[in-house]
Amino acid sequence: MAIRIGLVGTGTVGGGCIDIIQKHGDSFRRHYGIDLELARVCSLHDDEAKAHGVGHLFTPDYHDIVNDPDIDIVIELVGGTTVAKSVVLDALDAGKNVVTANKALMATSGQEVFDAADAAGKDIRFGASVGGGIPIIGPLKHSLIANEIESVMGIVNGTTNYMLTRMAEDNLSYEDALAEAQANGYAEANPSADVDGFDAAAKIAILGSIAFNTRIAMDDVYTRGISTIKPTDLEAAREMGYAVKLLAIAHRTDSGVDVRVHPTMIPVTHQLAHVDGVFNAIYVVGDFVGETMFFGEGAGAGAAASAVMGDVLDMARQLQAGVAPIVGCTCTDSLPIRVIDTLSMKYYIRFTVADRPGVLAVMSKVFADNNVSIHSMTQRGKADRSNVDVVYVTHTAKESDVQAALQTICEADDLVVAEPSLIRVEE
Amino acid sequence: MAIRIGLVGTGTVGGGCIDIIQKHGDSFRRHYGIDLELARVCSLHDDEAKAHGVGHLFTPDYHDIVNDPDIDIVIELVGGTTVAKSVVLDALDAGKNVVTANKALMATSGQEVFDAADAAGKDIRFGASVGGGIPIIGPLKHSLIANEIESVMGIVNGTTNYMLTRMAEDNLSYEDALAEAQANGYAEANPSADVDGFDAAAKIAILGSIAFNTRIAMDDVYTRGISTIKPTDLEAAREMGYAVKLLAIAHRTDSGVDVRVHPTMIPVTHQLAHVDGVFNAIYVVGDFVGETMFFGEGAGAGAAASAVMGDVLDMARQLQAGVAPIVGCTCTDSLPIRVIDTLSMKYYIRFTVADRPGVLAVMSKVFADNNVSIHSMTQRGKADRSNVDVVYVTHTAKESDVQAALQTICEADDLVVAEPSLIRVEE
Repeated sequence: MAIRIGLVGTGTVGGGCIDIIQKHGDSFRRHYGIDLELARVCSLHDDEAKAHGVGHLFTPDYHDIVNDPDIDIVIELVGGTTVAKSVVLDALDAGKNVVTANKALMATSGQEVFDAADAAGKDIRFGASVGGGIPIIGPLKHSLIANEIESVMGIVNGTTNYMLTRMAEDNLSYEDALAEAQANGYAEANPSADVDGFDAAAKIAILGSIAFNTRIAMDDVYTRGISTIKPTDLEAAREMGYAVKLLAIAHRTDSGVDVRVHPTMIPVTHQLAHVDGVFNAIYVVGDFVGETMFFGEGAGAGAAASAVMGDVLDMARQLQAGVAPIVGCTCTDSLPIRVIDTLSMKYYIRFTVADRPGVLAVMSKVFADNNVSIHSMTQRGKADRSNVDVVYVTHTAKESDVQAALQTICEADDLVVAEPSLIRVEE
Repeated sequence: MAIRIGLVGTGTVGGGCIDIIQKHGDSFRRHYGIDLELARVCSLHDDEAKAHGVGHLFTPDYHDIVNDPDIDIVIELVGGTTVAKSVVLDALDAGKNVVTANKALMATSGQEVFDAADAAGKDIRFGASVGGGIPIIGPLKHSLIANEIESVMGIVNGTTNYMLTRMAEDNLSYEDALAEAQANGYAEANPSADVDGFDAAAKIAILGSIAFNTRIAMDDVYTRGISTIKPTDLEAAREMGYAVKLLAIAHRTDSGVDVRVHPTMIPVTHQLAHVDGVFNAIYVVGDFVGETMFFGEGAGAGAAASAVMGDVLDMARQLQAGVAPIVGCTCTDSLPIRVIDTLSMKYYIRFTVADRPGVLAVMSKVFADNNVSIHSMTQRGKADRSNVDVVYVTHTAKESDVQAALQTICEADDLVVAEPSLIRVEE
């Protein structure tokens, strides 16, 4: 029996999916007995469909796909949370199984999507929503399920990892690294989703939900980006034996789930410290398996299409066996989210301050007044003609105390002349 | 409905499986609706069963498990290819689904085991047979199946990786590194299976079979171990920008499958170069996904038990849905195995030779006579009082030419005084 596919969205990833079906369709029949048939493709214009030789399957209206009684699987590659959400929910309502790469949708409306799938008795898969082609959702839902997962930490945004790598290796400024990333097609004209951490926040919400069997939405994730980082921070970190990465972190603790995205110092001996450029990696610790890491290309047409079509083929096997879905939503617990104020860790903080006597004494006193014990204070040279960079590294301190000290220092008259750079340390 | 499990083998991994069922049984019911019941355990003596509090489930005869009509899944953790094979085949014959961690059995009798499973209409899983707890067979059979896999390269033996790491980092001799590995419980009293590469050969036979959809048996794998490696080789490699690892390699080529295990120089910039100590990692390249890598603990009770129980839980889900097996044997092609003689690559070769005039001229002439072009020749100091180490690095050369040159040099009178160290270069 042929498995008939309706594809909504024919951009780079959709094009990759068409390529896979055209290139490997015979292999899928021979090796797995799966006969995939691309039945209909939908996008705004027919030129992309024509370019892939499937102009005859084109429709501009996704309803033609979700209402086609012969279509078994709908692939949603529109992106965003408006039309894409309608496509996914309408397809499930119409009794289709759905594969999506949509991290924003799953991280903001995951519960609603799963409820719709449950109500319809249909399957929803989203392996491509995190880590591009890296198998991570599959392993978390299958190979690793005998574990209680303790931690998930990921480099899940290739744009910022590329920028931090270029800043660390070639001393590029944040602005130059961003311009280079944009020139290479790694960053959007409006880079906020990447550089401010929102893309990573959506991904760790999804990973944390699966790993800890509890619903984590994007709003639950404390999120900070990399825009205050300067090459001097990366150099200082290296001197201390650390690499700086934009990490997406989810820890299970006795008092709830700690989920956040922010620039992070990790020891250079950690596996994640060697993940450079546009590559992604997700590090998972389970109580029986110990440490594991999953590495690969986090973006790009081929990688994302590999994940989408992996889901499609796996779903096709189950449809042929008459049992899709076998695995539905696994968010069966309701663990509290720990607010970051309650956490304690070590901090790296760089201030750019006026170069005049007494400023160090003022700042050091504020830290002491707020119970933040300082491990080291280093002047890292002139930031410009009249200002210097001063780096504090704290002992383990409470986030709320550090934030109070930071606010007091930043609000003092004639002291701090730029937004400080705060990097949390993960040992 | 409870899924009833019969466990054959209560050593470290079997003990880990019992621990997982006891510790996480409630979670499995709550999150996944899977009710696992350990129904019977078999081993030679009852003390291990008693130590895990399951003495009342003990039987010394595995037939009591495979013939019990109420048992759904048999876990085989006996190891080896004699009794273990009987357990697996008898269990399948009796209509049980089987989970095994047995790499030797799957790499030597995989076809026979799959045929028995097919005949019985039952499921056979072996996720723990490669890479301990690292999810790799699951991803190859599911998330990555939309790809044509081009290469699988793995550090799949923790013992030798530990030894090579210690030799590289602390200049330990092969003998001292082995003694240390044995003292730490990483190597057996008879270390041959590890240090001679046979353990890795079984694992790459399994991975290559799945990745390339063709049957590769352990005998098909060209296998060399690490016993000729000295610290000077690791130091020389580092100076050239390489790390030395015992790699298990499977490449798909136009003229067949190239499968081998041998000491290998890889660039220090490669992800595998940073996998040290007892850790394992498997690097997979697919035509759409690009580069991926899977990292983790390759051995140990917890890691292996995680993989075994991941298989058990996944199988349990399918049994509850009434559809096990969904994925059977996928070795549908019969690709030829390329013999190593036909390959071409670069080689690092260290000879320990008598320290007297003319030896370099003799050796260099033999290489030239055999069409092996030399990139560099370096004398690396005295091997002992009367001998010196000489290192040749070739340009790309044919394996058969290199072997012919090597044989001629080794058979020359009064020249080579120890077995040469040959390390192939993988760029």
